[in-house]
Amino acid sequence: MEDLMPNQMNQKVLLKKRPVGMPLIDDFELVNYSLSDIDEGEILIKIQYLSADPYQRGLLSENPLRGGILEVGSLIPGGAVGEVVISRNPNYKLGQMVEGRLGWQKYAITDGVGLRKIDSDLAPISTSLGVLGMPGMTAYFGFLEVCMPVPGDVVVVSAAAGAVGSLVGQIAKIMGCKVIGIAGSKEKNDYLIKNLKFDAAINYKVQDVDKILRDECPEGVDVYFDNVGGTLSDIVISQLNVGGRVGVCGQISLYNMSEPELAPRFLSTLIYRNIRIEGFVVYKWNSRYSEGIKRMAKWLKDGLIQYEEHIIHGFENAPQGLIDVLSGNNLGKVIIKI
Amino acid sequence: MEDLMPNQMNQKVLLKKRPVGMPLIDDFELVNYSLSDIDEGEILIKIQYLSADPYQRGLLSENPLRGGILEVGSLIPGGAVGEVVISRNPNYKLGQMVEGRLGWQKYAITDGVGLRKIDSDLAPISTSLGVLGMPGMTAYFGFLEVCMPVPGDVVVVSAAAGAVGSLVGQIAKIMGCKVIGIAGSKEKNDYLIKNLKFDAAINYKVQDVDKILRDECPEGVDVYFDNVGGTLSDIVISQLNVGGRVGVCGQISLYNMSEPELAPRFLSTLIYRNIRIEGFVVYKWNSRYSEGIKRMAKWLKDGLIQYEEHIIHGFENAPQGLIDVLSGNNLGKVIIKI
Repeated sequence: MEDLMPNQMNQKVLLKKRPVGMPLIDDFELVNYSLSDIDEGEILIKIQYLSADPYQRGLLSENPLRGGILEVGSLIPGGAVGEVVISRNPNYKLGQMVEGRLGWQKYAITDGVGLRKIDSDLAPISTSLGVLGMPGMTAYFGFLEVCMPVPGDVVVVSAAAGAVGSLVGQIAKIMGCKVIGIAGSKEKNDYLIKNLKFDAAINYKVQDVDKILRDECPEGVDVYFDNVGGTLSDIVISQLNVGGRVGVCGQISLYNMSEPELAPRFLSTLIYRNIRIEGFVVYKWNSRYSEGIKRMAKWLKDGLIQYEEHIIHGFENAPQGLIDVLSGNNLGKVIIKI
Repeated sequence: MEDLMPNQMNQKVLLKKRPVGMPLIDDFELVNYSLSDIDEGEILIKIQYLSADPYQRGLLSENPLRGGILEVGSLIPGGAVGEVVISRNPNYKLGQMVEGRLGWQKYAITDGVGLRKIDSDLAPISTSLGVLGMPGMTAYFGFLEVCMPVPGDVVVVSAAAGAVGSLVGQIAKIMGCKVIGIAGSKEKNDYLIKNLKFDAAINYKVQDVDKILRDECPEGVDVYFDNVGGTLSDIVISQLNVGGRVGVCGQISLYNMSEPELAPRFLSTLIYRNIRIEGFVVYKWNSRYSEGIKRMAKWLKDGLIQYEEHIIHGFENAPQGLIDVLSGNNLGKVIIKI
């Protein structure tokens, strides 16, 4: 116990003040506090990896429509994976690896409800925060269920080198689709084409997305998996075919804005093309996680899916992980190694 | 034949110049011309009623994404119903009433493909342009298939006193939904509540839509059938519940704009509420018209559905019919009686 719970102290990251624009390190506060006792039915988890994901920016906002739920002073919610080090719950043995929305803290006490047991023989446990976790399920269900791809569809994915986008593109290739990724650097786009076998990749920071997309997709776009929003999405939506589908997974280009930016209205352009736009959060498929994990694990094992991790070292650097993912400094999944 | 085809002359309405903003009478041109011979396999239809519908404004625009397909000098496309007065096609007997997209002309020569035979014993033939025609099918399929209502849903419909909106609201009542209509006059709203039994009606021209909608729907909105677009739609979309559905049927408030107006981006607000927005044109259900007509005719016969007609008299006044429907001067379906 000495080693597992030094001085019975925990550390956690709290929201110190609401970010204005891009979050700053100073918007967060690292605090020490004493762990409470482990009651009957509870377990103590020693967390090994934290997750940093774009959706967390929404939680920090004031607007509930954008995901704002957090009071100043609260623990930053987020995915985490770790080991059961004390168990007073018969469902959890010592040494069991578990994943859940435990928040940005070093230790978590929970009754186990909502936790997922992780098989550390299947893949490194950090994948439970990525390809075999929330981002993987977001890509799997969001793409297959909302975007309803069929072989031959032309699929565009934004933030294509991110945790979700890179998986969406690879699933689209497995489905027999043509895939165009949009990302923000040459390094990312080289990765998409050389490693992930995307058909094309566009660097939105330096290239003319509208023109290149028209050149690459003379037959138009059938599916747009949107992680980014903004002008980029206006362009892709304008090139959708009849029956086009847009899965709105994220709008990362807008998360740091205090007020929504103004843009030309486009709903009238959906009518003649029978276009569907659907927002989603992965939790709607909670009851089907095991199905998705099984399938993704198989694809991973068969070499049909690859993943990258952008690792931040040190618990205290968790806020930097969020800043990295919001800035697009990452290739693949951002995780914090405690 | 003398009476049916005086001097073998036809009259038609052409697009003289593209409207800028609200169409003017002078944007249209009435021309006389000689009818050609009726070839083997063709029929001559003497048109009795023309249809004026909001979608026609889109056809007149330059932008194909907004429906623009028309060259200047073309016949104005539009629904029409009339009688077969010459037939060289064994599928059509003399005296048969038929409906189709025959355009704004007094006579039409066609091979009959795409025409619909009308049973004039079922209902007045003008209903083939309204409740038992395109607007009726738009309401029936657009609401049931795209908006997927269930009993108890809170349904908001804009342009609620128009040809489509008034039917959507009544079908929603048949489905056991709570229905709130939005329309632009006290007369219209009185009609919605007293005649059509809507649960509430809001006059967007003089009332605070956001506040009244919140008051009338403390439980939020589940379905929004959108005929109007613009700020009104921003308000309704902001009050949608988790799992909310928006059927984008029309955006009449925007049709007369040369450039799309700017508005706050809202896609990010769809994510946490799993909201789906879908544009549609009724022709996607072409193969199912008979199903929809049969159901609507039954409801009409049973007194569950009522309809109003806003009749413009005289072929030459067809453009005024379009101006009326775009200005919201109508209660119910705008038709032109030749």
